[in-house]
Amino acid sequence: MVIDVKKDINVGVVGANGLVGYEMIKCLEELNDDRINIFTYASSISEGETIVTNKTKYKIEKLTEDSFKGLHFALFAENNKISEKYVKLAIQAGCIVIDNSSYFRMHKEVPLVCIGVNDEDVFLHQGIIASPSCCTIQLMRSLKILDDIFVVKKVIVSTYQSVSEIGKKAVEEYSMNQYINLPEYNSFPYYESPIHYSIKDNIIPQFEVFNLENGYSNEELNITNETKKILKEDINLSATCVIVPTYRGHGESVYIETEKEVDIEKFKEVIKKDNYVELKDDLEKQIYPLVKDCYYNKKAEIGRIRKDLFNTNAVHFFIVGDNLYLGAAYNTVMILKTLIDKTIIG
Amino acid sequence: MVIDVKKDINVGVVGANGLVGYEMIKCLEELNDDRINIFTYASSISEGETIVTNKTKYKIEKLTEDSFKGLHFALFAENNKISEKYVKLAIQAGCIVIDNSSYFRMHKEVPLVCIGVNDEDVFLHQGIIASPSCCTIQLMRSLKILDDIFVVKKVIVSTYQSVSEIGKKAVEEYSMNQYINLPEYNSFPYYESPIHYSIKDNIIPQFEVFNLENGYSNEELNITNETKKILKEDINLSATCVIVPTYRGHGESVYIETEKEVDIEKFKEVIKKDNYVELKDDLEKQIYPLVKDCYYNKKAEIGRIRKDLFNTNAVHFFIVGDNLYLGAAYNTVMILKTLIDKTIIG
Repeated sequence: MVIDVKKDINVGVVGANGLVGYEMIKCLEELNDDRINIFTYASSISEGETIVTNKTKYKIEKLTEDSFKGLHFALFAENNKISEKYVKLAIQAGCIVIDNSSYFRMHKEVPLVCIGVNDEDVFLHQGIIASPSCCTIQLMRSLKILDDIFVVKKVIVSTYQSVSEIGKKAVEEYSMNQYINLPEYNSFPYYESPIHYSIKDNIIPQFEVFNLENGYSNEELNITNETKKILKEDINLSATCVIVPTYRGHGESVYIETEKEVDIEKFKEVIKKDNYVELKDDLEKQIYPLVKDCYYNKKAEIGRIRKDLFNTNAVHFFIVGDNLYLGAAYNTVMILKTLIDKTIIG
Repeated sequence: MVIDVKKDINVGVVGANGLVGYEMIKCLEELNDDRINIFTYASSISEGETIVTNKTKYKIEKLTEDSFKGLHFALFAENNKISEKYVKLAIQAGCIVIDNSSYFRMHKEVPLVCIGVNDEDVFLHQGIIASPSCCTIQLMRSLKILDDIFVVKKVIVSTYQSVSEIGKKAVEEYSMNQYINLPEYNSFPYYESPIHYSIKDNIIPQFEVFNLENGYSNEELNITNETKKILKEDINLSATCVIVPTYRGHGESVYIETEKEVDIEKFKEVIKKDNYVELKDDLEKQIYPLVKDCYYNKKAEIGRIRKDLFNTNAVHFFIVGDNLYLGAAYNTVMILKTLIDKTIIG
């Protein structure tokens, strides 16, 4: 469908009452673009549920098959089941869809876009563009910089993921559990999990369902596969994804082997000039990325950059990003902006 | 000094009012050995401070240069400064010292002993035996098993360390911070740190002081150097040590490259029969190590064991251990037990 973006741009936020949905609405408002009209939907809502931002109040509509009439864009921030059912309906109704779920990310015809890395791929869409996992997004720009200069071969990632990644109910359980011993647990590692664990004083080395064949969780395989798709096929990344008792922001401990010997100072110099990554690295002043301080940062934060103790062609660093913002809502809305910055899109 | 262990064995616990000191006292009591008499000391105490266990009450003496008269053993659970000053005085007074601090660990003449790995080294002591860092201890047995069968070459570790590792005051700050926004922070990353950060909803990629030359923290270098000393010199381990908002128990995400291709099932079979590591690994049942459930376990817990996605000579796993018990007090008291199980020791 060809959209004339000189006029109204009708954007639907699907999953508006979730944590990411809320941040999407605020990101859309922040564009300060008069052409944009925001419409809010959710698959599961309470009667009369609204979203309140600094600018206005939105009454959320229950998501139905007819929700997409008249919309130009539909930004999805629901789960895989909802995306599986409704994305095609949105496309059929004429929308361009930007989807946060993992459902379509590896589909051949679906561009998987990380802003700052492969923005131009948005124009290859056939109705839908997928936004990567937050862990992939916050890592990708630094990985690209390193790859461009030193050629990345192998990556080992261990994550420190916050509870907000699971959802609003998980944040509520996490908060309550700081004060009272709950009679039961329903959120971790994920809502539909057959077995639930408490996150209080705990770290849970499971994020999403396990692939029983190779022993990795889907989140771990997401980072592997998405990195190959976004950056380059010839990159061997294995991850361990862990939930820790923090509210928001993910940490990643990263080890990378390169073809050429890494010049740490050069790497830092390039990052200092970069628009997508912020250097937080001064050991004498004890400056390094802290998840607590990264909320709403449009850039991933990188620090603890150092060579491996034994391999001159390997580095370690620590990367932090706001999983709800940088890793989801902001990436999604920047994909939208990349599209509408062109006069006519289709 | 030759000790006839048929009679009284006088054991001094130095740092008795700390978290590790307390666990040491309980471990000593658990030996149920009538020969053992426990004496408690601390470098910093309140007037009339006592330690209460299920068995009895101990009045803590202020640590002085004369504290070691009449003691056969002195178990140190204070900081490096205290060990630096008092360990030699304890040895001069005739004690065999077992030290938890990092001060003497890499000294040539000091055995560095991880029970289950190099127990026999205790008999090489010249007055002092050092107990390794908790991160080293909980990893070492699994590393040894893997090395014996497949020959370990390289290890990458990312830790998830709990606040109790910093100390009692840190646990207090962590607890209070769950309820109130504190006006200032004094515990993290460590007490004497020039700059302090809040641990609430935060992860801190610094554990101990940084070595400005190579960019690693002392804790990270501890794991590297202690592994070389305990297991074998030809093992390249680089670590990233991170504090997470949990009370007790450390997690470690471990990646290992081996000379021979790893047979995962064989590795698991050997662990199942092991006395020092417990297998917690069943993905279908969502069984993996959880720090919340590992308190007082005499064995490290290992799970998420799987091959690297791309390198057949590499594995990943997740290891958990009680840092105060397995990683400190229990290892220390088992070193003592190894010594006193011989009739005459010196």
